[in-house]
Amino acid sequence: MVSMTDKAPIDFWFDFLSPYGYLGSIQIEKLAAEHGREVRWRPTLLGIMVMNVMGLPAVPATPLKGPYSGMESARLFKYFGVERNAFNDGDLPPLPAIRTFTWLNMSDPALAKQFGQALYRAHWSEATDVSTPEAVATFAHDRFGLAESDVIAAIDDPDVKDALKASVGEAIETGVFGVPTFVIDGERFWGNERLPMIERLLATGSLDP
Amino acid sequence: MVSMTDKAPIDFWFDFLSPYGYLGSIQIEKLAAEHGREVRWRPTLLGIMVMNVMGLPAVPATPLKGPYSGMESARLFKYFGVERNAFNDGDLPPLPAIRTFTWLNMSDPALAKQFGQALYRAHWSEATDVSTPEAVATFAHDRFGLAESDVIAAIDDPDVKDALKASVGEAIETGVFGVPTFVIDGERFWGNERLPMIERLLATGSLDP
Repeated sequence: MVSMTDKAPIDFWFDFLSPYGYLGSIQIEKLAAEHGREVRWRPTLLGIMVMNVMGLPAVPATPLKGPYSGMESARLFKYFGVERNAFNDGDLPPLPAIRTFTWLNMSDPALAKQFGQALYRAHWSEATDVSTPEAVATFAHDRFGLAESDVIAAIDDPDVKDALKASVGEAIETGVFGVPTFVIDGERFWGNERLPMIERLLATGSLDP
Repeated sequence: MVSMTDKAPIDFWFDFLSPYGYLGSIQIEKLAAEHGREVRWRPTLLGIMVMNVMGLPAVPATPLKGPYSGMESARLFKYFGVERNAFNDGDLPPLPAIRTFTWLNMSDPALAKQFGQALYRAHWSEATDVSTPEAVATFAHDRFGLAESDVIAAIDDPDVKDALKASVGEAIETGVFGVPTFVIDGERFWGNERLPMIERLLATGSLDP
């Protein structure tokens, strides 16, 4: 394995509301570790990108594509061998969770990533409620020893809101329009289905067969 | 290899205007041959599905996703090792080509498939004009010995138009919304990026890891 310091990190753009993002978070960390890369978790908001910037309806509300996407999400959990046991059948207002991530990420990206991994798993595999500020604060306290009042305050902190807005803006500038999006040495890959391409790029430095 | 008659054919839903469809047509025939399956080519019209049924703008006109899709199309040609040398930079009014396919498919699916493979290659890899009834007729004559007048007549034949409309209707009923879509033993897969999943399903009969 090459040294972790030799190569640029992989940017992983995510939103907690996406089951595809959860699956991608697991797969990209595995691939990155195998190829001596770090993964930088970059928060964004799928709703802003899809509805405000692209002007599209949410995928679940799109004829033909909505039912397919629901089916494929369940199928991908099976394909990747990840348990799907989602709180509220997967529906997650993402702001409390992603603002807490953003807050942690401002001072301690490693802790933020651990929080993100645990929160993704809690919501999608452990049917744990992380849908409200109070629920996220309880989760952050129980799993990471954070003070609940600090989490509640962070979720409403204008600096945190601004940092998240800036991150969404950077996602849009980068051309991110879906979750997960992986950026590796300037190459963008949207979706878990591109992981075999990413694997080839990481292994050989090229996409050529 | 198991006998070709043991297992149900794979349905390959396509439209000639899609570079993804072209790449998928090559890959699915390879995979199917390796696993003792036939591939049934099923024509559809991407424009009807995306714009009329889903109510979405065409992908190239969608902010963020449009530029990504153009980049990814070029990248996939490289990834699959297929030459991209497209007539009119890829822009193809599909009706003359797909009605000719539909006409051939009504009496001789094997010939229709050969025609489809050659036409896809002509447009996307050989920069050959197949964009008008006259150009398709010339192509069908030069490559398959068909009478140009028969091709011109078929492109305007109400029975052929009806057969194509019925096929598009069946695509929509099946939940097809993009090209390529592969249907294998009742499982739908949209896009070339699902080929590794298809490979696992064909090899093991299951999507489980």
